[in-house]
Amino acid sequence: MIKRKICVVITARPSYSRVKTLLQAIQTHPDLELQLIVAASALLDRYGSAVNYIKNDGFDIAAKVFNVLEGENLTAAAKTTGIGILELSTVFDNLKPDIVITVADRFETMATAISASYMNIPLAHLQGGEVTGNIDEKVRHAITKLADYHFVASEGAKERVIKLGENPEMVFNTGCPSIDLAYLVKDCTMDFDPYQKYGGVGAKPDLSNGYLVVMQHPVTTEYSDSRKHIEQTLKAIAELEIPTLWFWPNVDAGADGTSTGIRAYREQHKIEHIHFFKNMEGTDFLKLLNNAKALIGNSSVGIRECAYLGVPVVNIGSRQHRRDRGHNSIDVGYHQNEIKQAIQSHLTNGKSAASSIYGGGNAGEQIADLLQKLTLQFHKTISY
Amino acid sequence: MIKRKICVVITARPSYSRVKTLLQAIQTHPDLELQLIVAASALLDRYGSAVNYIKNDGFDIAAKVFNVLEGENLTAAAKTTGIGILELSTVFDNLKPDIVITVADRFETMATAISASYMNIPLAHLQGGEVTGNIDEKVRHAITKLADYHFVASEGAKERVIKLGENPEMVFNTGCPSIDLAYLVKDCTMDFDPYQKYGGVGAKPDLSNGYLVVMQHPVTTEYSDSRKHIEQTLKAIAELEIPTLWFWPNVDAGADGTSTGIRAYREQHKIEHIHFFKNMEGTDFLKLLNNAKALIGNSSVGIRECAYLGVPVVNIGSRQHRRDRGHNSIDVGYHQNEIKQAIQSHLTNGKSAASSIYGGGNAGEQIADLLQKLTLQFHKTISY
Amino acid sequence: MIKRKICVVITARPSYSRVKTLLQAIQTHPDLELQLIVAASALLDRYGSAVNYIKNDGFDIAAKVFNVLEGENLTAAAKTTGIGILELSTVFDNLKPDIVITVADRFETMATAISASYMNIPLAHLQGGEVTGNIDEKVRHAITKLADYHFVASEGAKERVIKLGENPEMVFNTGCPSIDLAYLVKDCTMDFDPYQKYGGVGAKPDLSNGYLVVMQHPVTTEYSDSRKHIEQTLKAIAELEIPTLWFWPNVDAGADGTSTGIRAYREQHKIEHIHFFKNMEGTDFLKLLNNAKALIGNSSVGIRECAYLGVPVVNIGSRQHRRDRGHNSIDVGYHQNEIKQAIQSHLTNGKSAASSIYGGGNAGEQIADLLQKLTLQFHKTISY
Amino acid sequence: MIKRKICVVITARPSYSRVKTLLQAIQTHPDLELQLIVAASALLDRYGSAVNYIKNDGFDIAAKVFNVLEGENLTAAAKTTGIGILELSTVFDNLKPDIVITVADRFETMATAISASYMNIPLAHLQGGEVTGNIDEKVRHAITKLADYHFVASEGAKERVIKLGENPEMVFNTGCPSIDLAYLVKDCTMDFDPYQKYGGVGAKPDLSNGYLVVMQHPVTTEYSDSRKHIEQTLKAIAELEIPTLWFWPNVDAGADGTSTGIRAYREQHKIEHIHFFKNMEGTDFLKLLNNAKALIGNSSVGIRECAYLGVPVVNIGSRQHRRDRGHNSIDVGYHQNEIKQAIQSHLTNGKSAASSIYGGGNAGEQIADLLQKLTLQFHKTISY
Repeated sequence: MIKRKICVVITARPSYSRVKTLLQAIQTHPDLELQLIVAASALLDRYGSAVNYIKNDGFDIAAKVFNVLEGENLTAAAKTTGIGILELSTVFDNLKPDIVITVADRFETMATAISASYMNIPLAHLQGGEVTGNIDEKVRHAITKLADYHFVASEGAKERVIKLGENPEMVFNTGCPSIDLAYLVKDCTMDFDPYQKYGGVGAKPDLSNGYLVVMQHPVTTEYSDSRKHIEQTLKAIAELEIPTLWFWPNVDAGADGTSTGIRAYREQHKIEHIHFFKNMEGTDFLKLLNNAKALIGNSSVGIRECAYLGVPVVNIGSRQHRRDRGHNSIDVGYHQNEIKQAIQSHLTNGKSAASSIYGGGNAGEQIADLLQKLTLQFHKTISY
Repeated sequence: MIKRKICVVITARPSYSRVKTLLQAIQTHPDLELQLIVAASALLDRYGSAVNYIKNDGFDIAAKVFNVLEGENLTAAAKTTGIGILELSTVFDNLKPDIVITVADRFETMATAISASYMNIPLAHLQGGEVTGNIDEKVRHAITKLADYHFVASEGAKERVIKLGENPEMVFNTGCPSIDLAYLVKDCTMDFDPYQKYGGVGAKPDLSNGYLVVMQHPVTTEYSDSRKHIEQTLKAIAELEIPTLWFWPNVDAGADGTSTGIRAYREQHKIEHIHFFKNMEGTDFLKLLNNAKALIGNSSVGIRECAYLGVPVVNIGSRQHRRDRGHNSIDVGYHQNEIKQAIQSHLTNGKSAASSIYGGGNAGEQIADLLQKLTLQFHKTISY
Repeated sequence: MIKRKICVVITARPSYSRVKTLLQAIQTHPDLELQLIVAASALLDRYGSAVNYIKNDGFDIAAKVFNVLEGENLTAAAKTTGIGILELSTVFDNLKPDIVITVADRFETMATAISASYMNIPLAHLQGGEVTGNIDEKVRHAITKLADYHFVASEGAKERVIKLGENPEMVFNTGCPSIDLAYLVKDCTMDFDPYQKYGGVGAKPDLSNGYLVVMQHPVTTEYSDSRKHIEQTLKAIAELEIPTLWFWPNVDAGADGTSTGIRAYREQHKIEHIHFFKNMEGTDFLKLLNNAKALIGNSSVGIRECAYLGVPVVNIGSRQHRRDRGHNSIDVGYHQNEIKQAIQSHLTNGKSAASSIYGGGNAGEQIADLLQKLTLQFHKTISY
Repeated sequence: MIKRKICVVITARPSYSRVKTLLQAIQTHPDLELQLIVAASALLDRYGSAVNYIKNDGFDIAAKVFNVLEGENLTAAAKTTGIGILELSTVFDNLKPDIVITVADRFETMATAISASYMNIPLAHLQGGEVTGNIDEKVRHAITKLADYHFVASEGAKERVIKLGENPEMVFNTGCPSIDLAYLVKDCTMDFDPYQKYGGVGAKPDLSNGYLVVMQHPVTTEYSDSRKHIEQTLKAIAELEIPTLWFWPNVDAGADGTSTGIRAYREQHKIEHIHFFKNMEGTDFLKLLNNAKALIGNSSVGIRECAYLGVPVVNIGSRQHRRDRGHNSIDVGYHQNEIKQAIQSHLTNGKSAASSIYGGGNAGEQIADLLQKLTLQFHKTISY
């Protein structure tokens, strides 16, 4: 029997973490063939070279697509998407996949969605139906309207995708594959030395009495404010003097403000209790979180994996606005005082209650099974 | 006072006809400045050079964007869209519009939508919320999810856009500006000689006892069947031996099948009662329709303008599937017999009843007024 | 032993004819592997679909590259080259050729040259060192400066390439592979019915008493004059009333003027002795020429193959200006009278003397042998 | 009188320094209008944001072109050039320059040359005819073959351009405009505090007893060796323990190896006498050089400006190979011992003799005068 060819396009480090168990489930499925495309910032050193982790995890890469146009402004984001379409359409022409999978809602994932749907290749979308408060909102729902199959991560997401006019029979709440990874580490201690294993720069505070983790990305539509925001977070963390592990942001229009803010702060201040990492292998990162006193920032990992693990989260600003969440998260604005107080509140209360709102740990396998069974189609209309 | 800059992107001849009265209303509005971009097939000779009509109608063109990649296959359609994004983002950077308007649902209009929305320029979409049975369905609704304002053409369309999760306050049923043009010709006879004025090829049958009009486009997702379909229509028309004015199709993946089919048929058969046109100025075309015995094909003009004018229509195949329609249209499949019988039925019954389902004749002015009054915004979330 | 991978990029129908014997020699060479890329107008129906001849001749196509941007103006020519670089660099990344071959001097061949040389892939250039009087002049010599190996077609060309500063050890006068094909037909009659085999449009004059062949391309830097030029040739041929087989021009900035000129002339005049072809398989075309009374136009086939075959040529305008030539060619300007008189002069004098100035018939094999033996290198400096 | 429009495309920080006096001469010329385009790495923060210096110097920017594709590999260099053509052709279409000027030989300058020459815009090339030992060699001479006018920097360069087949009447030895800037500072002391004015990172050694300057770029065709090379230079400088001001490299395929090498070295070693700068305003940089004990590296500034100023230079590796030079330069390989010994030799001998081999200080004005007087042309053939 000819295996069904499933093409997955990974455009960034966090997207890889989200679909890793799905990639494994496709690769080991007897009736599926994985065609893995690594693109955009997932290939670039200064955004954590997800490509290296992908190779180390044993995946073959069918094609690499370089499409990030330098500029770190909104025009460059549009052009990166245009170049992505030019490149991916050639790749799809060569690979002739039976189904293409696009992940979540980063701006450049639109290139995957357009290339596949325009070329009449059935398109599956992971993590549609969610809500937030920035440009991602447009991209995510537009991709839903281009996609033929929807693998969503929560009941709320399923309802929203159906309300968007999609055929309910094509919407599957499988939970999020990122929770599959959290499932594997939920009883793990931090069994490695992060300084030794991942390098990075800055102080190397003692982590044995607990630590904070910070991960704050720029927010696209508030572009010019990125630098101001990150400075507030830096001040809050600096004042607390608790050992802190800080992760650099992804590429995005506005990355510049955030990164520059961090670099400038570091040059002007002595900060003895913060260490900065560029990136970390997914499982290690989850172990780190599982044992952290709190996660601070605006990463979706706070809403998803940390909810499942019961890790307290201080969620800053609008980036995760309106997303379904568990009871582990305190939402705050950008001001240093708010941030500081929320951290202190978490420190007082300790570990939060766990929640399976984003899945129970077998999303990858569920999705792979569906990919094998689904009727291939690329012809759809609004369903009401 | 600084005029609000309204940038309209026209990518094809039929799109121009649809928005001509809107362009006039923007141009004459005291508080608006029109920035007109002509792109894609609207610039190309073999698709009717809409650009010439635009100039003759007195509009200034702010920028021309050549982005059609030759190939007439689906990959080329994707790449045309990618190139469109590269080019339009530069144009928007230069023109700095306050609002960008994208029209309807042709595949390349996605380039307008992505460039504007990614660059945080408020985006208005004309003719969202409609339904059909092919790829247009995906493009149209995806653009709805990228757009901030929706000027729709019917109550049915308004309801569907709102169901898609858009804020009802941003959805306006203004009717379709194309009906504004139909309004102007509804009492007109055909006061010109089409052979003399528009050239074309083939026989020049006498039109004084009535005539048929044919306009049939390839249907994207049934690409390989285009040639077979057009041959059926050619046979039906050939057998009827009624004077017929036939219009060549637009560019689209599949144009080749349709065009080749027509060319091959012409070389193999003597057909004394059909004349072929490449294109016609919009008002003349409407006068032609207004005095026709019937329109045959799959153009949306049959559903819209012909409904308003009460012109009988034989609507072939899936292209207008599920679109709101008046009582002037008989839907048929691709077989020559079905087509022939439907034409004969119309010939027996004569003119149909008129319907204002797609507007009452002042859409252009209504939209221009709204464009002046709307609060500028580009930040949106799903509304439920 | 691992075979050396030789990647040849074909961008147009005439380029294919020029290298066909080389492709065969590479394909049959025990130590070489052919990687054939078909690109640009060679893929397009309206420029003769060279791709179909290539497949029929039994070559496998490693990749197709669609990069022709519609517009038929000079900006589109530049952009076509830019898109070509984007696409070819991906293809080269996948195919990992040991040597890339670019042919002659069409504007889009620059994309092949830039992609290969920038990616440190050894680049061979066919037919460098020639001289003409238009933009090709710039492209050809610029490619010489990017190329590592030069397979030239005449002693004059060899001298010029060396004068351009190239290392004489890397410049090889192998003759032109197109002459290899002429060698095969030099004793052949026209053993097929061109009307039946190749269709085309127009009259079908009796060819048994001899005929003319016309092939006239637009001249890039005289863009706006293309239409005027072709009309002069049409008038000259029309007045002669000799059976004539006319070939449509290739794509090029300006194609529009030439094509439109021909189409308009056909619609306005009855011409009983001219038949128009879109294209013809190379060997058949050579047989046609070999038995023609004269070739009229500005194709290089008049300078090369016709010199070898001794076919009289009327060479119009600047396109072949200063190219090395045999004694078969009369050079004229664009005026109908000049053209007419030159044809009449040839008709009086009959067949011309043959010349091996562009090679003796085994260029393909010579080049293939060299491709196997050459030391691979991509690092060069000016040699004086 | 209508001013002649002169369009200059700047793609990198060092190119700007080279043409600054020309830009001034064009801007102040009564019959010329400057159209300045800033593109590629000249716009990017991590390559020194030349655009900021350009603005501070009072030049208006007619257009910005973002075309750097991230990837830092050779494929990305090719694609950056392709994108440059797509973007620049649009810009030229809008600005309609009378002459386009492209500077020197960086890979992306080819985009300027192709866009202008394909669009029939007269093209002038600065600094053709020079020789080096890497890929630049191909780019530079290929651009010469695309250009209509040549403003070269030395008699040797003039001879070589003519030998390349260019019309001698179109080749002008004006000297290099970068020497115009050196002319202005030749009697200047370093009248500013570089640490205070330009920030940077690392130690702040006392400069009052003299200092070294280092500027070493990766060499494209030796891509993988970049890191090894830079480590040798770092070791040589580290051992000398002389105050050193070190400049980061430009973007180029391979930048990564060099930059990573420097960063890694800094993290692993305490180096008390080296300060690192990202960039410096041109005049300040020249003052810095004018007062340095020696320049170490492979920058062309060592061959040109330092020759004029009599500053001793240790020229490492192949990047300036075979370039015309004065008596101020010692050429060495990449090994730390060679580098160290050459520096010590210069320290013993002191200041070198000055040389006007690259011009006498008024190149900008000479070129501007020629740009006003030249007959406009874009049609050329090889001149022998």
